[in-house]
Amino acid sequence: MVLAKTQQVIEHSIGYLGPAGTYTEEMVLSTYLKQKNIKLVPYTSIDAVIRAVEAGEVTEGVVPIENSLEGSVNITLDTLAHEVNLFITKEMVQPIKHHLLIHKTGSIDKINVIVSHPQALAQCRQYINQNFPRAELKVVDSTAAAALLVAEGALDHAAIGGLRAGEIHGLKVVAASIEDQHNNCTRFIVLKSRPELAKAGHCKTSVVCKINGQRPGSLYELLSEFVKYDVNLTKIESRPARTGLGEYIFFLDLDGSIYEAPVRNAIKAVELKSLWFKNLGSYLCHIE
Amino acid sequence: MVLAKTQQVIEHSIGYLGPAGTYTEEMVLSTYLKQKNIKLVPYTSIDAVIRAVEAGEVTEGVVPIENSLEGSVNITLDTLAHEVNLFITKEMVQPIKHHLLIHKTGSIDKINVIVSHPQALAQCRQYINQNFPRAELKVVDSTAAAALLVAEGALDHAAIGGLRAGEIHGLKVVAASIEDQHNNCTRFIVLKSRPELAKAGHCKTSVVCKINGQRPGSLYELLSEFVKYDVNLTKIESRPARTGLGEYIFFLDLDGSIYEAPVRNAIKAVELKSLWFKNLGSYLCHIE
Repeated sequence: MVLAKTQQVIEHSIGYLGPAGTYTEEMVLSTYLKQKNIKLVPYTSIDAVIRAVEAGEVTEGVVPIENSLEGSVNITLDTLAHEVNLFITKEMVQPIKHHLLIHKTGSIDKINVIVSHPQALAQCRQYINQNFPRAELKVVDSTAAAALLVAEGALDHAAIGGLRAGEIHGLKVVAASIEDQHNNCTRFIVLKSRPELAKAGHCKTSVVCKINGQRPGSLYELLSEFVKYDVNLTKIESRPARTGLGEYIFFLDLDGSIYEAPVRNAIKAVELKSLWFKNLGSYLCHIE
Repeated sequence: MVLAKTQQVIEHSIGYLGPAGTYTEEMVLSTYLKQKNIKLVPYTSIDAVIRAVEAGEVTEGVVPIENSLEGSVNITLDTLAHEVNLFITKEMVQPIKHHLLIHKTGSIDKINVIVSHPQALAQCRQYINQNFPRAELKVVDSTAAAALLVAEGALDHAAIGGLRAGEIHGLKVVAASIEDQHNNCTRFIVLKSRPELAKAGHCKTSVVCKINGQRPGSLYELLSEFVKYDVNLTKIESRPARTGLGEYIFFLDLDGSIYEAPVRNAIKAVELKSLWFKNLGSYLCHIE
């Protein structure tokens, strides 16, 4: 990674959930390390990253969308559906190891408060209940912000975060890999203001739609279009439509790109059957 | 509600998310007010309520399962699916109004920390971002615990909670109805260790299953059973199977009771098509 000295030669700026030391930063560094003329811009929350791409402050943004234990990152889905018009241009998957980090002069016996991002706290719920049942839980915007808080002298606090967060802030690891299940990984997406139609490689297409939930069988009819065109649905996730209890929107992930006729035809049919529809883009996906 | 004086005459004990002043308590009080020989037992977290029913400490438990803005309560779904064997025996819906509550000697200008249950914080995200962009967010197990913390003298804290939480702890309301959308309501369920098959009234049936997600069209085939038997699917929600990224279990809510042949037949067919299956019960549901 080369930080360009003048605005003129910067070709891309990448917004991500900062500050230094987040899992998102680890992912961004490993992905963009070899590219030149890249500027990394940390933001303090996931929705701030997404809004920065929408406002044109950065050319792309990297945010988490799903974790294998805790499920979808709701703020990412809800902001994409309801508040911006952006496209997913890439997907990346990172294994997640959570560690319990304390001040270098602190002691594990003195932990009264455990601080982290809400998803990290949720992914270590059993560990916390078993080992620190009386600890106060404090939420901050990122695992790195949690590490910073401890580094600044919160001696009765422990942060949950990655090794990099601990190293940057000079913390010591008092318990390693404390996530409740060890197949813990997170899916990240790259967002841009225009779609980038991936023409080669293994692609995925994401759409979000609202159907008439009052009419029996309408979800089944929607899914029939994928069967008809032999398109594989890899994920379906419902989120509140925000119009009332029992009304939902559906996020659908499909194997393949809109460059392929079956995907294009299936999506066109789904759009026609939807009360509301948004294409979030076709993009290169992570392969196991 | 009559609190019985001796253990012998107590017919039912109800576990709920306490302490006094939570939205769950408001719901429990209004539901069980007229019943005699009932003992109310507050717990400090949602999973503690559910485990107390499983352990037989209480005869039933009341927990939130879904909010119209923030979606499913993941800890409720995940605990029901993975960690206990309980049944839903009733559903209840309550409108939710969130208020910003501060110490009676405090001032709105001095708020540095906003404390509440994670779902309440999420439901007021826009209000907080607009009005207190620099406030630290602190998570506690309930809105009532947040109110208690403020009442105990946290003068730079504001709690987000209901009117009852504010009244019990002598707090003042400095901003009313701060939820981001005003059609905010929460669905609660009653859990017991044995199913109670509702024979009359408007019923719903809930099941959870895992299908072979690697095989294209398997979700469609599952849903085809509901169409075949003319059973209406009112909700579908995916959650991580906890076996790896991209592997899901599905929570399905159906109109009708297992006492009705079409529902019974559809469920039997779904069970046969599932890799893993759990019937969470048929129960009287809330009618709009």
